Amino acid sequence: MDLEAKKKVLRSFTYGLYVLTARDGEEYAAGTVNWVTQASFQPPLIALGVKRDSRLHALIGRTGRLALMTLAADQKAIAQDFFKPTVQEGGALNGHPFVPSPTFGLPLLTELPYWLEAEVRHLYEGGDHSLVVAEVVEAGVRHEARPLVMGDTGWFYGG
Amino acid sequence: MDLEAKKKVLRSFTYGLYVLTARDGEEYAAGTVNWVTQASFQPPLIALGVKRDSRLHALIGRTGRLALMTLAADQKAIAQDFFKPTVQEGGALNGHPFVPSPTFGLPLLTELPYWLEAEVRHLYEGGDHSLVVAEVVEAGVRHEARPLVMGDTGWFYGG
Repeated sequence: MDLEAKKKVLRSFTYGLYVLTARDGEEYAAGTVNWVTQASFQPPLIALGVKRDSRLHALIGRTGRLALMTLAADQKAIAQDFFKPTVQEGGALNGHPFVPSPTFGLPLLTELPYWLEAEVRHLYEGGDHSLVVAEVVEAGVRHEARPLVMGDTGWFYGG
Repeated sequence: MDLEAKKKVLRSFTYGLYVLTARDGEEYAAGTVNWVTQASFQPPLIALGVKRDSRLHALIGRTGRLALMTLAADQKAIAQDFFKPTVQEGGALNGHPFVPSPTFGLPLLTELPYWLEAEVRHLYEGGDHSLVVAEVVEAGVRHEARPLVMGDTGWFYGG
């Protein structure tokens, strides 16, 4: 295989940027992710690539639950804050306030415009990231916003 | 669940646009898709949502092989041509010339800048679309181009 071409082709894929969260009791995990897609209308499934050696992966695997929020076009700095290890302090994760989600009590960052809660239906562990397939059980819109598009950030995660 | 919010949140996801092709002997299928993400670096896996009642789904299921091409920002009209049923005529699919891919002989549209061939590793049939996980086995770049971003087309497929 032409590895340089493979990298370029995979980097031609378009992504948004999202903050993924999980929680098991008092243990919290949150991270910025981009390997996200819808996977079915009925039932409403989403699919996400989650790094296997991450705390998010451990917590999602243990609880079967996750929350996902879409970052707005002007929230690149927030995306950056969730590249760092998760610190929970005084109702905030990495300095950003959160509230518990209605169904599972997962952390929802109140600055982010779009959120959903989902329940894991399937896990495929064939690579260095697991593919998590989850069914959306609740969703909410705090305000309408244009999403942050990875191609506009100058960042890459893929290839 | 708040269904209106669910639709809005799922439509806040960002997508590129791609032409997916498959072939079994003289039978060809090609269609524009957007539910696509990388799913692993090592091995290089991609994941795609493919409509279960489509010919693409049947051919990919039967052969375990697919080709995927990224549409460039100025190729919205080509994306539109592959919303229609597949017609193969004189070395063209829906009027667009193709060549066989090097490994599997799948149709590669020569106008599209980025292509890959992949072999199916896993299929999850939990919804109205199957989630196809496939390993990239070959890839190529015809020319460098900015990808077509769904948010810029005014189209939606999701919600």
